[in-house]
Amino acid sequence: MKEIAIQSRSRCEMIDITAAVQKAAGEENILSGIGVVYTLHTTAAVTINENADPDVRRDILAALERAVPLVADYRHAEGNSAAHVKSSLVGVSEMVIVENGRLVLGTWQSLFFCEFDGPRSRKVLVKFIT
Amino acid sequence: MKEIAIQSRSRCEMIDITAAVQKAAGEENILSGIGVVYTLHTTAAVTINENADPDVRRDILAALERAVPLVADYRHAEGNSAAHVKSSLVGVSEMVIVENGRLVLGTWQSLFFCEFDGPRSRKVLVKFIT
Amino acid sequence: MKEIAIQSRSRCEMIDITAAVQKAAGEENILSGIGVVYTLHTTAAVTINENADPDVRRDILAALERAVPLVADYRHAEGNSAAHVKSSLVGVSEMVIVENGRLVLGTWQSLFFCEFDGPRSRKVLVKFIT
Repeated sequence: MKEIAIQSRSRCEMIDITAAVQKAAGEENILSGIGVVYTLHTTAAVTINENADPDVRRDILAALERAVPLVADYRHAEGNSAAHVKSSLVGVSEMVIVENGRLVLGTWQSLFFCEFDGPRSRKVLVKFIT
Repeated sequence: MKEIAIQSRSRCEMIDITAAVQKAAGEENILSGIGVVYTLHTTAAVTINENADPDVRRDILAALERAVPLVADYRHAEGNSAAHVKSSLVGVSEMVIVENGRLVLGTWQSLFFCEFDGPRSRKVLVKFIT
Repeated sequence: MKEIAIQSRSRCEMIDITAAVQKAAGEENILSGIGVVYTLHTTAAVTINENADPDVRRDILAALERAVPLVADYRHAEGNSAAHVKSSLVGVSEMVIVENGRLVLGTWQSLFFCEFDGPRSRKVLVKFIT
Protein backbone atom coordinates (compact mmCIF):
# COMPACT_ATOMS: atom_id res chain seq x y z
CA MET A 1 0.00 0.00 0.00
CA LYS A 2 1.24 3.47 -0.90
CA GLU A 3 0.25 6.79 0.59
CA ILE A 4 -0.03 10.03 -1.38
CA ALA A 5 0.06 13.31 0.57
CA ILE A 6 -2.01 16.19 -0.81
CA GLN A 7 -2.23 19.84 0.21
CA SER A 8 -5.38 21.53 -1.04
CA ARG A 9 -5.41 25.32 -1.42
CA SER A 10 -9.13 26.15 -1.81
CA ARG A 11 -12.43 25.15 -0.24
CA CYS A 12 -13.37 23.17 -3.36
CA GLU A 13 -10.73 21.94 -5.77
CA MET A 14 -9.91 19.00 -8.06
CA ILE A 15 -6.23 17.97 -7.93
CA ASP A 16 -4.75 15.66 -10.58
CA ILE A 17 -3.13 12.66 -8.87
CA THR A 18 -2.63 10.46 -11.95
CA ALA A 19 1.17 10.73 -11.95
CA ALA A 20 1.36 9.89 -8.25
CA VAL A 21 -0.84 6.81 -8.68
CA GLN A 22 1.19 5.71 -11.73
CA LYS A 23 4.36 6.15 -9.66
CA ALA A 24 2.88 3.99 -6.89
CA ALA A 25 2.15 1.23 -9.42
CA GLY A 26 5.75 1.42 -10.64
CA GLU A 27 7.24 1.31 -7.15
CA GLU A 28 5.22 -1.82 -6.41
CA ASN A 29 6.18 -3.39 -9.77
CA ILE A 30 2.57 -3.92 -10.80
CA LEU A 31 2.49 -5.23 -14.38
CA SER A 32 -1.15 -6.35 -14.55
CA GLY A 33 -3.78 -5.89 -11.89
CA ILE A 34 -6.32 -3.58 -10.36
CA GLY A 35 -5.94 -0.85 -7.77
CA VAL A 36 -8.08 0.95 -5.23
CA VAL A 37 -7.42 4.70 -5.00
CA TYR A 38 -8.97 5.63 -1.68
CA THR A 39 -9.17 8.79 0.39
CA LEU A 40 -9.38 8.61 4.17
CA HIS A 41 -11.59 11.69 4.56
CA THR A 42 -15.33 12.29 4.86
CA THR A 43 -15.41 15.70 3.14
CA ALA A 44 -13.37 14.74 0.07
CA ALA A 45 -13.62 12.28 -2.81
CA VAL A 46 -11.77 10.63 -5.70
CA THR A 47 -13.03 10.79 -9.27
CA ILE A 48 -11.93 10.23 -12.86
CA ASN A 49 -12.77 12.91 -15.41
CA GLU A 50 -11.32 15.18 -18.10
CA ASN A 51 -7.87 16.64 -17.66
CA ALA A 52 -7.64 18.77 -20.82
CA ASP A 53 -9.82 21.85 -20.29
CA PRO A 54 -9.64 23.19 -16.71
CA ASP A 55 -13.13 24.62 -17.24
CA VAL A 56 -14.49 21.07 -16.95
CA ARG A 57 -13.24 20.86 -13.38
CA ARG A 58 -14.64 24.33 -12.66
CA ASP A 59 -18.02 23.29 -14.13
CA ILE A 60 -18.12 20.03 -12.14
CA LEU A 61 -17.43 21.85 -8.87
CA ALA A 62 -20.01 24.56 -9.70
CA ALA A 63 -22.68 22.00 -10.65
CA LEU A 64 -22.08 20.10 -7.40
CA GLU A 65 -22.44 23.41 -5.54
CA ARG A 66 -25.80 24.05 -7.24
CA ALA A 67 -27.08 20.52 -6.54
CA VAL A 68 -25.81 20.54 -2.94
CA PRO A 69 -25.70 24.18 -1.71
CA LEU A 70 -23.18 25.19 0.95
CA VAL A 71 -25.93 26.84 2.98
CA ALA A 72 -29.22 25.00 3.43
CA ASP A 73 -31.30 23.50 6.20
CA TYR A 74 -28.39 21.54 7.70
CA ARG A 75 -28.13 20.54 11.38
CA HIS A 76 -24.46 19.43 11.57
CA ALA A 77 -22.80 22.27 13.48
CA GLU A 78 -19.45 22.32 11.65
CA GLY A 79 -20.93 24.02 8.58
CA ASN A 80 -19.51 21.44 6.16
CA SER A 81 -22.53 19.21 5.60
CA ALA A 82 -22.50 19.97 1.86
CA ALA A 83 -18.95 18.59 1.72
CA HIS A 84 -20.09 15.35 3.40
CA VAL A 85 -22.93 15.00 0.88
CA LYS A 86 -20.62 15.59 -2.09
CA SER A 87 -18.20 13.00 -0.67
CA SER A 88 -20.91 10.32 -0.73
CA LEU A 89 -22.17 11.40 -4.17
CA VAL A 90 -18.76 11.38 -5.89
CA GLY A 91 -17.38 8.58 -3.71
CA VAL A 92 -14.22 8.16 -1.64
CA SER A 93 -12.53 5.74 -4.05
CA GLU A 94 -11.98 4.86 -7.68
CA MET A 95 -10.79 1.59 -9.20
CA VAL A 96 -7.99 1.57 -11.75
CA ILE A 97 -6.82 -1.15 -14.12
CA VAL A 98 -3.09 -1.71 -14.76
CA GLU A 99 -1.74 -3.46 -17.88
CA ASN A 100 1.92 -3.63 -18.96
CA GLY A 101 2.80 -1.56 -15.94
CA ARG A 102 0.62 1.37 -17.01
CA LEU A 103 -2.71 2.67 -15.71
CA VAL A 104 -5.34 2.00 -18.36
CA LEU A 105 -7.09 5.35 -18.81
CA GLY A 106 -9.03 6.90 -21.68
CA THR A 107 -7.39 9.61 -23.77
CA TRP A 108 -8.97 12.40 -21.75
CA GLN A 109 -9.13 10.69 -18.34
CA SER A 110 -7.17 11.63 -15.25
CA LEU A 111 -7.57 10.70 -11.60
CA PHE A 112 -8.55 13.59 -9.35
CA PHE A 113 -8.59 14.10 -5.62
CA CYS A 114 -11.68 16.22 -4.89
CA GLU A 115 -11.42 18.66 -2.00
CA PHE A 116 -14.80 19.83 -0.74
CA ASP A 117 -13.82 21.39 2.62
CA GLY A 118 -10.33 22.81 2.18
CA PRO A 119 -7.76 24.03 2.37
CA ARG A 120 -6.40 21.02 4.25
CA SER A 121 -3.63 18.41 4.34
CA ARG A 122 -5.11 15.20 2.93
CA LYS A 123 -4.14 11.59 2.25
CA VAL A 124 -4.91 9.15 -0.55
CA LEU A 125 -4.07 5.44 -0.27
CA VAL A 126 -3.34 3.20 -3.26
CA LYS A 127 -3.56 -0.56 -2.92
CA PHE A 128 -2.95 -2.91 -5.88
CA ILE A 129 -3.93 -6.56 -6.27
CA THR A 130 -2.47 -8.68 -9.06
CA MET B 1 -17.99 -14.43 0.30
CA LYS B 2 -19.93 -13.36 3.38
CA GLU B 3 -23.49 -12.15 3.62
CA ILE B 4 -24.70 -9.48 6.04
CA ALA B 5 -28.45 -9.32 6.81
CA ILE B 6 -29.91 -5.88 7.48
CA GLN B 7 -33.35 -4.81 8.68
CA SER B 8 -34.11 -1.17 7.95
CA ARG B 9 -36.74 0.63 10.02
CA SER B 10 -37.43 3.82 8.02
CA ARG B 11 -37.99 4.81 4.42
CA CYS B 12 -34.56 6.48 4.32
CA GLU B 13 -31.83 5.48 6.74
CA MET B 14 -28.05 5.03 6.98
CA ILE B 15 -27.03 1.94 8.98
CA ASP B 16 -23.44 1.48 10.18
CA ILE B 17 -22.12 -1.89 8.95
CA THR B 18 -18.42 -1.36 9.71
CA ALA B 19 -18.28 -3.93 12.51
CA ALA B 20 -20.05 -6.55 10.39
CA VAL B 21 -17.60 -6.01 7.49
CA GLN B 22 -14.62 -6.14 9.88
CA LYS B 23 -16.03 -9.40 11.30
CA ALA B 24 -16.31 -10.84 7.78
CA ALA B 25 -12.65 -10.00 7.13
CA GLY B 26 -11.69 -11.74 10.36
CA GLU B 27 -13.72 -14.86 9.61
CA GLU B 28 -12.02 -15.15 6.24
CA ASN B 29 -8.58 -14.53 7.80
CA ILE B 30 -7.82 -11.60 5.51
CA LEU B 31 -4.52 -10.03 6.57
CA SER B 32 -3.87 -7.84 3.54
CA GLY B 33 -6.16 -7.33 0.59
CA ILE B 34 -9.12 -5.48 -0.80
CA GLY B 35 -12.83 -6.11 -0.45
CA VAL B 36 -16.04 -5.32 -2.31
CA VAL B 37 -18.96 -4.37 -0.05
CA TYR B 38 -21.96 -4.81 -2.32
CA THR B 39 -25.71 -4.56 -1.89
CA LEU B 40 -28.03 -6.68 -4.02
CA HIS B 41 -30.81 -4.09 -4.20
CA THR B 42 -31.79 -1.36 -6.67
CA THR B 43 -33.27 1.08 -4.15
CA ALA B 44 -30.39 1.03 -1.67
CA ALA B 45 -26.67 1.85 -1.66
CA VAL B 46 -23.40 1.53 0.26
CA THR B 47 -21.31 4.55 1.22
CA ILE B 48 -18.47 5.62 3.50
CA ASN B 49 -18.93 8.79 5.56
CA GLU B 50 -18.78 10.25 9.06
CA ASN B 51 -19.86 8.16 12.02
CA ALA B 52 -19.43 10.70 14.82
CA ASP B 53 -22.27 13.21 14.58
CA PRO B 54 -25.59 11.55 13.62
CA ASP B 55 -26.65 14.92 12.14
CA VAL B 56 -24.25 14.25 9.24
CA ARG B 57 -26.31 11.22 8.24
CA ARG B 58 -29.52 13.23 8.65
CA ASP B 59 -28.08 16.03 6.48
CA ILE B 60 -26.90 13.60 3.78
CA LEU B 61 -30.33 11.99 3.55
CA ALA B 62 -32.07 15.39 3.52
CA ALA B 63 -29.75 16.77 0.81
CA LEU B 64 -30.37 13.69 -1.34
CA GLU B 65 -34.11 14.23 -0.84
CA ARG B 66 -33.78 17.84 -2.04
CA ALA B 67 -31.69 16.89 -5.07
CA VAL B 68 -33.92 13.92 -5.96
CA PRO B 69 -37.45 14.62 -4.67
CA LEU B 70 -39.72 11.74 -3.71
CA VAL B 71 -42.53 13.19 -5.82
CA ALA B 72 -41.71 14.48 -9.29
CA ASP B 73 -42.55 13.75 -12.90
CA TYR B 74 -41.78 10.01 -12.59
CA ARG B 75 -43.35 7.28 -14.75
CA HIS B 76 -42.33 4.14 -12.83
CA ALA B 77 -45.58 3.04 -11.18
CA GLU B 78 -44.15 1.75 -7.89
CA GLY B 79 -43.57 5.25 -6.53
CA ASN B 80 -39.93 4.59 -5.63
CA SER B 81 -38.15 6.14 -8.60
CA ALA B 82 -36.30 8.58 -6.34
CA ALA B 83 -34.85 5.59 -4.47
CA HIS B 84 -33.58 4.10 -7.75
CA VAL B 85 -31.93 7.40 -8.66
CA LYS B 86 -30.27 7.74 -5.25
CA SER B 87 -29.00 4.15 -5.57
CA SER B 88 -27.17 4.99 -8.80
CA LEU B 89 -25.87 8.30 -7.43
CA VAL B 90 -24.46 6.88 -4.19
CA GLY B 91 -23.63 3.49 -5.72
CA VAL B 92 -24.37 -0.09 -4.74
CA SER B 93 -20.82 -0.88 -3.59
CA GLU B 94 -17.76 0.45 -1.83
CA MET B 95 -14.20 -0.84 -1.90
CA VAL B 96 -12.28 -1.37 1.33
CA ILE B 97 -8.58 -1.94 1.96
CA VAL B 98 -7.43 -4.43 4.62
CA GLU B 99 -3.96 -4.30 6.24
CA ASN B 100 -2.80 -6.32 9.26
CA GLY B 101 -6.26 -7.84 9.43
CA ARG B 102 -7.99 -4.48 9.92
CA LEU B 103 -10.09 -2.34 7.58
CA VAL B 104 -8.10 0.77 6.72
CA LEU B 105 -10.50 3.63 7.41
CA GLY B 106 -10.00 7.28 8.27
CA THR B 107 -10.54 8.45 11.84
CA TRP B 108 -14.11 9.56 11.13
CA GLN B 109 -15.03 6.99 8.45
CA SER B 110 -17.58 4.21 8.75
CA LEU B 111 -19.26 2.01 6.18
CA PHE B 112 -22.99 2.59 5.85
CA PHE B 113 -25.79 0.68 4.21
CA CYS B 114 -28.15 3.31 2.75
CA GLU B 115 -31.84 2.46 2.73
CA PHE B 116 -33.84 4.59 0.30
CA ASP B 117 -37.10 2.60 0.11
CA GLY B 118 -37.60 0.98 3.49
CA PRO B 119 -38.42 -0.43 5.83
CA ARG B 120 -37.23 -3.73 4.33
CA SER B 121 -35.07 -6.79 4.91
CA ARG B 122 -31.85 -6.27 2.94
CA LYS B 123 -28.59 -8.04 2.14
CA VAL B 124 -25.00 -6.88 1.75
CA LEU B 125 -22.29 -9.17 0.34
CA VAL B 126 -18.61 -8.87 1.19
CA LYS B 127 -15.98 -10.46 -1.03
CA PHE B 128 -12.26 -10.14 -0.31
CA ILE B 129 -9.31 -10.73 -2.65
CA THR B 130 -5.76 -11.02 -1.33
CA MET C 1 -8.82 -7.85 -19.82
CA LYS C 2 -11.79 -7.82 -22.18
CA GLU C 3 -13.19 -4.94 -24.20
CA ILE C 4 -16.89 -4.40 -24.89
CA ALA C 5 -17.82 -2.13 -27.80
CA ILE C 6 -21.00 -0.07 -27.45
CA GLN C 7 -22.88 2.12 -29.92
CA SER C 8 -25.24 4.56 -28.25
CA ARG C 9 -28.18 5.96 -30.22
CA SER C 10 -29.35 8.92 -28.09
CA ARG C 11 -27.82 11.80 -26.16
CA CYS C 12 -28.71 10.12 -22.86
CA GLU C 13 -29.30 6.39 -22.66
CA MET C 14 -28.77 3.39 -20.36
CA ILE C 15 -27.64 0.25 -22.20
CA ASP C 16 -27.75 -3.17 -20.51
CA ILE C 17 -24.26 -4.76 -20.68
CA THR C 18 -24.85 -7.59 -18.19
CA ALA C 19 -24.70 -10.37 -20.80
CA ALA C 20 -21.48 -8.99 -22.29
CA VAL C 21 -19.82 -8.81 -18.87
CA GLN C 22 -21.00 -12.34 -18.02
CA LYS C 23 -19.58 -13.51 -21.38
CA ALA C 24 -16.23 -11.89 -20.54
CA ALA C 25 -16.13 -13.74 -17.21
CA GLY C 26 -16.82 -17.01 -19.04
CA GLU C 27 -14.14 -16.41 -21.67
CA GLU C 28 -11.60 -15.78 -18.93
CA ASN C 29 -12.77 -18.87 -16.97
CA ILE C 30 -13.44 -16.87 -13.82
CA LEU C 31 -15.03 -19.17 -11.23
CA SER C 32 -14.67 -16.97 -8.14
CA GLY C 33 -13.35 -13.43 -8.03
CA ILE C 34 -14.12 -9.77 -8.49
CA GLY C 35 -14.20 -7.62 -11.60
CA VAL C 36 -13.87 -3.97 -12.52
CA VAL C 37 -16.30 -2.83 -15.23
CA TYR C 38 -14.76 0.42 -16.44
CA THR C 39 -15.56 2.92 -19.15
CA LEU C 40 -12.78 4.91 -20.80
CA HIS C 41 -14.87 8.05 -21.35
CA THR C 42 -15.43 11.28 -19.41
CA THR C 43 -19.04 11.88 -20.48
CA ALA C 44 -20.35 8.39 -19.71
CA ALA C 45 -20.66 6.10 -16.70
CA VAL C 46 -21.36 2.56 -15.51
CA THR C 47 -24.10 1.77 -13.00
CA ILE C 48 -26.13 -1.11 -11.59
CA ASN C 49 -29.90 -0.67 -11.34
CA GLU C 50 -33.26 -2.19 -12.23
CA ASN C 51 -33.68 -3.99 -15.53
CA ALA C 52 -37.38 -4.88 -15.34
CA ASP C 53 -39.39 -1.70 -15.96
CA PRO C 54 -37.78 0.53 -18.64
CA ASP C 55 -39.48 3.51 -16.94
CA VAL C 56 -36.89 3.21 -14.15
CA ARG C 57 -34.12 3.99 -16.63
CA ARG C 58 -36.19 6.84 -18.06
CA ASP C 59 -36.78 8.23 -14.55
CA ILE C 60 -33.09 7.97 -13.61
CA LEU C 61 -32.01 9.85 -16.73
CA ALA C 62 -34.73 12.50 -16.21
CA ALA C 63 -33.83 12.98 -12.53
CA LEU C 64 -30.15 13.40 -13.45
CA GLU C 65 -31.20 15.97 -16.04
CA ARG C 66 -33.14 17.92 -13.39
CA ALA C 67 -30.27 17.79 -10.88
CA VAL C 68 -27.64 18.67 -13.52
CA PRO C 69 -29.33 20.70 -16.29
CA LEU C 70 -27.95 20.56 -19.82
CA VAL C 71 -27.94 24.34 -20.02
CA ALA C 72 -26.60 26.30 -17.06
CA ASP C 73 -23.78 28.67 -16.22
CA TYR C 74 -21.08 26.41 -17.72
CA ARG C 75 -17.76 27.65 -19.14
CA HIS C 76 -16.53 24.53 -20.97
CA ALA C 77 -17.03 25.43 -24.63
CA GLU C 78 -18.07 22.00 -25.92
CA GLY C 79 -21.56 22.24 -24.41
CA ASN C 80 -21.31 18.89 -22.66
CA SER C 81 -20.42 19.96 -19.12
CA ALA C 82 -23.56 18.36 -17.71
CA ALA C 83 -22.38 15.04 -19.14
CA HIS C 84 -19.01 15.40 -17.37
CA VAL C 85 -20.79 16.14 -14.08
CA LYS C 86 -23.10 13.12 -14.44
CA SER C 87 -20.08 10.94 -15.21
CA SER C 88 -18.46 11.86 -11.88
CA LEU C 89 -21.74 11.52 -9.98
CA VAL C 90 -22.63 8.07 -11.31
CA GLY C 91 -19.00 6.98 -11.69
CA VAL C 92 -16.98 5.46 -14.51
CA SER C 93 -16.82 1.97 -13.00
CA GLU C 94 -18.71 -0.66 -11.05
CA MET C 95 -17.37 -3.66 -9.17
CA VAL C 96 -18.89 -7.09 -9.70
CA ILE C 97 -18.53 -10.30 -7.70
CA VAL C 98 -18.27 -13.68 -9.47
CA GLU C 99 -19.11 -16.99 -7.77
CA ASN C 100 -19.43 -20.39 -9.49
CA GLY C 101 -18.69 -18.68 -12.78
CA ARG C 102 -21.70 -16.35 -12.54
CA LEU C 103 -21.99 -12.64 -11.77
CA VAL C 104 -23.62 -12.27 -8.36
CA LEU C 105 -26.45 -9.80 -8.94
CA GLY C 106 -29.74 -9.16 -7.17
CA THR C 107 -32.97 -10.35 -8.74
CA TRP C 108 -33.65 -6.96 -10.34
CA GLN C 109 -30.07 -5.83 -10.94
CA SER C 110 -28.39 -5.35 -14.30
CA LEU C 111 -25.19 -3.59 -15.31
CA PHE C 112 -25.74 -0.51 -17.46
CA PHE C 113 -23.47 1.62 -19.60
CA CYS C 114 -24.75 5.20 -19.18
CA GLU C 115 -24.41 7.47 -22.20
CA PHE C 116 -24.63 11.15 -21.31
CA ASP C 117 -23.28 12.75 -24.53
CA GLY C 118 -24.29 10.47 -27.39
CA PRO C 119 -24.80 9.12 -29.83
CA ARG C 120 -21.22 7.80 -29.92
CA SER C 121 -19.08 4.68 -30.25
CA ARG C 122 -17.94 3.76 -26.75
CA LYS C 123 -15.78 1.19 -24.95
CA VAL C 124 -16.10 -0.64 -21.64
CA LEU C 125 -13.22 -2.67 -20.20
CA VAL C 126 -13.67 -5.64 -17.88
CA LYS C 127 -10.78 -6.86 -15.73
CA PHE C 128 -11.17 -9.77 -13.30
CA ILE C 129 -8.95 -10.74 -10.35
CA THR C 130 -9.29 -14.13 -8.67
